Amino acid sequence: MRMLFIVSAAILFVAVAAAQSQPPQLNIMPMPGVVQFGAGKLHLLPSFSVAVDGVKDATLERGVQRFVAELSRETGMPLRNKTSESVNPSLVIHAERRSEAVSRLGEDESYELAVSESGAKLTAPNPLGILHGLQTFLQLVAPSPDGFALPAVTIKDRPRFPWRGLLIDVGRHFIPLEVLKRNIDGMAAVKMNVLHLHLSDDQGFRVESKRFPKLHEVGSDGLYYTQDQIRDLVSYAHDRGIRVLPEFDTPGHSGSWFVGYPELASNPGPYTIAPDAKDSVTDPTQEATYKFLDKFIAEMAQIFPDAYFHIGGDEVNGEHWDANPKIQAFIRSHGMKNNQDLQAYFNRRLQEILSKHHKIMIGWDEVLHPELPKTIVIQSWRGQESLAVAAQQGYSGLLSFGYYLDLMWPAARHYAVDPMSGAAVNLNPEQRMRILGGEACMWTEWVTPENIDSRVWPRTAAIAERLWSPQEVQDPGSMYVRLGELSWRLEWLGLTHRSGLVPMLHRMAGSEDISALRTLADVVEPVKDYARMDSVKGPWDFRAPLNHLVDAGSPESETARHFRELVQAYIQSGYKDQTAEAQIRTALTAWRDNDARLHPLLGQSFLLSDLAPLSQDLSAIGTAGLQALDYLDRSQPFPEPWRTQQLGLIERAKTPKANLLLMIALPLQQLVAVTDPQHSLP
Amino acid sequence: MRMLFIVSAAILFVAVAAAQSQPPQLNIMPMPGVVQFGAGKLHLLPSFSVAVDGVKDATLERGVQRFVAELSRETGMPLRNKTSESVNPSLVIHAERRSEAVSRLGEDESYELAVSESGAKLTAPNPLGILHGLQTFLQLVAPSPDGFALPAVTIKDRPRFPWRGLLIDVGRHFIPLEVLKRNIDGMAAVKMNVLHLHLSDDQGFRVESKRFPKLHEVGSDGLYYTQDQIRDLVSYAHDRGIRVLPEFDTPGHSGSWFVGYPELASNPGPYTIAPDAKDSVTDPTQEATYKFLDKFIAEMAQIFPDAYFHIGGDEVNGEHWDANPKIQAFIRSHGMKNNQDLQAYFNRRLQEILSKHHKIMIGWDEVLHPELPKTIVIQSWRGQESLAVAAQQGYSGLLSFGYYLDLMWPAARHYAVDPMSGAAVNLNPEQRMRILGGEACMWTEWVTPENIDSRVWPRTAAIAERLWSPQEVQDPGSMYVRLGELSWRLEWLGLTHRSGLVPMLHRMAGSEDISALRTLADVVEPVKDYARMDSVKGPWDFRAPLNHLVDAGSPESETARHFRELVQAYIQSGYKDQTAEAQIRTALTAWRDNDARLHPLLGQSFLLSDLAPLSQDLSAIGTAGLQALDYLDRSQPFPEPWRTQQLGLIERAKTPKANLLLMIALPLQQLVAVTDPQHSLP
Repeated sequence: MRMLFIVSAAILFVAVAAAQSQPPQLNIMPMPGVVQFGAGKLHLLPSFSVAVDGVKDATLERGVQRFVAELSRETGMPLRNKTSESVNPSLVIHAERRSEAVSRLGEDESYELAVSESGAKLTAPNPLGILHGLQTFLQLVAPSPDGFALPAVTIKDRPRFPWRGLLIDVGRHFIPLEVLKRNIDGMAAVKMNVLHLHLSDDQGFRVESKRFPKLHEVGSDGLYYTQDQIRDLVSYAHDRGIRVLPEFDTPGHSGSWFVGYPELASNPGPYTIAPDAKDSVTDPTQEATYKFLDKFIAEMAQIFPDAYFHIGGDEVNGEHWDANPKIQAFIRSHGMKNNQDLQAYFNRRLQEILSKHHKIMIGWDEVLHPELPKTIVIQSWRGQESLAVAAQQGYSGLLSFGYYLDLMWPAARHYAVDPMSGAAVNLNPEQRMRILGGEACMWTEWVTPENIDSRVWPRTAAIAERLWSPQEVQDPGSMYVRLGELSWRLEWLGLTHRSGLVPMLHRMAGSEDISALRTLADVVEPVKDYARMDSVKGPWDFRAPLNHLVDAGSPESETARHFRELVQAYIQSGYKDQTAEAQIRTALTAWRDNDARLHPLLGQSFLLSDLAPLSQDLSAIGTAGLQALDYLDRSQPFPEPWRTQQLGLIERAKTPKANLLLMIALPLQQLVAVTDPQHSLP
Repeated sequence: MRMLFIVSAAILFVAVAAAQSQPPQLNIMPMPGVVQFGAGKLHLLPSFSVAVDGVKDATLERGVQRFVAELSRETGMPLRNKTSESVNPSLVIHAERRSEAVSRLGEDESYELAVSESGAKLTAPNPLGILHGLQTFLQLVAPSPDGFALPAVTIKDRPRFPWRGLLIDVGRHFIPLEVLKRNIDGMAAVKMNVLHLHLSDDQGFRVESKRFPKLHEVGSDGLYYTQDQIRDLVSYAHDRGIRVLPEFDTPGHSGSWFVGYPELASNPGPYTIAPDAKDSVTDPTQEATYKFLDKFIAEMAQIFPDAYFHIGGDEVNGEHWDANPKIQAFIRSHGMKNNQDLQAYFNRRLQEILSKHHKIMIGWDEVLHPELPKTIVIQSWRGQESLAVAAQQGYSGLLSFGYYLDLMWPAARHYAVDPMSGAAVNLNPEQRMRILGGEACMWTEWVTPENIDSRVWPRTAAIAERLWSPQEVQDPGSMYVRLGELSWRLEWLGLTHRSGLVPMLHRMAGSEDISALRTLADVVEPVKDYARMDSVKGPWDFRAPLNHLVDAGSPESETARHFRELVQAYIQSGYKDQTAEAQIRTALTAWRDNDARLHPLLGQSFLLSDLAPLSQDLSAIGTAGLQALDYLDRSQPFPEPWRTQQLGLIERAKTPKANLLLMIALPLQQLVAVTDPQHSLP
């Protein structure tokens, strides 16, 4: 299947190369496999109509209705779906087969979209491909000098990997149904196909269990999904070509189970949902545990129809097993060597239960153990190595290492991580086929319903492209151009990743004029990796308000990225690019003057007071940068001790403050680091 | 009742005066009747709790739950309503009586809110007052240097008028339920209490009728409210202290009735819903009309529980009656003089039907006729005169003249219109009591679900204050400060009057960078009064896309208002206020340079191409303004012919283009109009 893409990638390269040398002609994300441009364009008129001439299918019909409504909203043209009325439809849709009641991994998701001046035709083996093709159609629509139009183009497209997921951790912070739904819409827009819900963790158990009601009743703060809501969500996702994968983490990360059912734990209780609550691990030595899990999984299997079921299995705290003599005795009496063997025993028992309920087990890296059957799937979070090892041993796998959205990496860094790179390079073709794809992971220690959109989007689209598009699609410049275009379009779906910042800034300032605060917000990013958690003193309070700038600002500063590009262009031009210099100067001037505007506000609000040093750094960097430009304009070498002083100042500005990084410090450092600009041309 | 406010207004004046001389201390809108400041502040802690110690009432309970959720959202602090748990509640609520099942006009809406360092107490005769007091509480919350807090303050508040309405015309453009709901939330935030729905017009009939299903089925484009939705809406509004007033316009503006029931019309059909459709008028001479209306009103009375029922009655096109010999014969045979008498006859018959169904009739100015009983209410749209005349004749009345939001007036112009001013000044106290209040009117010829929020908000809040606050609260400066603060807070309710502009600009541009377009959008306003409709050639097409800048931009440019204030401050300082001059210069420079940035975009999109002259005007004005400042800096008189040329240019820039007005032209004209600045000091 993947051999086909050798041809498609070559054709694609032309399109990508063209996009780099001139304004990109095709703002599609993920980039399709094969793109052939035709002549002219298809105008989108108020009479626009769609005809479905292949199989009739309710999922498809609803998809077409949503498509027309979306087209209407995005253009502001009141379109009605006139499927049955039109003699000469603008878009003809043809699917050969009907939808499956439950989507299967590996279904054919390909489609072909042909747009000409006279109309468009979208064909696919089944409705999944049609749904993808409609998303491509939507992205092709843009205003032209004589009306909304699509370029004449033929697109042949199919995913590189069959598993393209987004994990949302609803355990640490509950994420309401409507927020999940708009994120599902975002996933559909970038052709992702698995929503993985991390449904339980020490901070909360988030699904109603009628069999074991204390799970959600006392194992949460009252925030959970009813079974009806889960059914609604699964159906909503299925309509959009997306499978829902449930994860109930065990034997670790399972404190919320024990609040209502302490008898399952390795340590005696009592247990609570609280920041300083004792964590614990399921007791795998008692038969009661398996009886409980059997009944629980039987119940959950009814509301989660997907063939796969995720049991977590990560980060098991061995201390609790070490401390329990009964458990240690069990290990010895069963001829096991250590806790890892005990977890493997637990997983094998669990796998048998899942199998009985017709579910395929997935677990994190740690579940990999030769005792388990090859049918299970390994999700790799600790590195690419474990994915390759699993594939070599005959296990299927998913990559999530490199796709952790909570680490606040820039999109390009996620984009550079390929499931087939690293240790996977040496796999043989059969082993490579076992790498099913990957999942972006939104862990929510620092994420709430309010800011989740800005943590997930638009960066997840870069990961979606990595998993959908041919491997050769790799240019970060083209990616960022298309990501920027996609980003504003995603807000039509109700996502608030861009617009959500403004009300949060107003809240912090408590006032109308947030322009100076916005200027600061636009050049900072939250600290990376686990630095924020590492800075917490005492137990992490998952109930604390997340209403500071670090919670509101974007994980990736577009302003800083553009500034970095400008400074690089200016340096590479030998300090001669006057357009770049003028833009740099404008930015530096605004930053230099910003602290005077912002300072009065900072003292008025406890949500802003810790930003004062950051605001001062911004002004100081603005001043330093303007002085540097003045020297450069006069072709003067930077004098000492000025240069050393500025470098020291910039270095200090690079240290995190209020859990934020000033992202313009680095490019300024590059500008000032030059000893003698006259002799440092590239 | 209104005499009380002589005292309250005096106290209030202190607060308003204080707000003008220093940063306003109380950003509340509408301004309460009596405000007394205490010492210190009440901190809003995560342990915040509410106790209801008066009557228990389901409406009140839901109101408190919404209040806590809203407080939680606006602060980002996860608060839970711990009503029953707290020993020492932060806010104690006490209502003396329970809610009425259906709110009545003139219920006591007063409340008293006392906030001290140790807690707050909110008391009211009934839940209506409590709901208003909770809104005041919400507006008092702001970040302080040591946390979210409210100032210690005692507020005694009650409305000046018992009827404070917003009309939304859902006939011309259908407005979906969720959009109405968020507007109801906005109304509740500014203490309005009547949502008037204009439910039928020539362009559509918007309520399901089970008795006469062709009304909504063929009398609309398929967009209407089901009866269940109406019940839901009425209940939603009632929960927020808001009555829902239905209007079915008749005998004019009723083309949509005739598509399904042409036998009701004065002219034979056929009728359609189309831009060029024949309009017509109900035939008041046949008994079948009254039988139909009797059954129809009986049905609607069931789903609209309010005591009042609006029958429209405006703008009856007499030509249709003139053209029908049978109708003319009826007029003569019944001893009537003219069509007006016939309409009065129709209204009297209608009033009897309404009365039979326990409804009080309301109609527009035109229904005023001595034959009608004094129980009916006159809604004045043609002028304040008719309101006074009605009051003199013993009729109750509502003012809407001066409150038409579709005329795109600035908030201050609406704010200056008082129901008791104009002809009403000469009414005696008894007659004055007949003026019940007023209604802001959102006619939707040019309004869609997408832009309605920006047409309604924040300007409606100025009208809400006019109808709620003491008459003496009149300072537009204070109003604008508070309106600005209220405006961003209103977006917490889901209203999109500010945020909605951005996606519309992206749509027009079809691209990511909209900064230059935004700069232009921020200084223009849609043309005023009926100028846009007057510019339409041929029949007005109510189905045309409303996706141009005139549809997206704000009715009132904040940037232009601030610029106007700056220029006035600068002129009044004798051209010496250097801070003002620097800010003027910054703005003018950005405008001068904007066309070069915007021009390339304008050619790419049909939605922008008509903005080119406007963009050029903006740059020309920027250039002219900067030259003027240079002359002023050098204390040079403006030379001729430069000055005459610039004034000509500015004059041309004041003419509408693309149905937009460049709102910075006028202040620039004031600056340049001075012949010799040295001799023109104030």
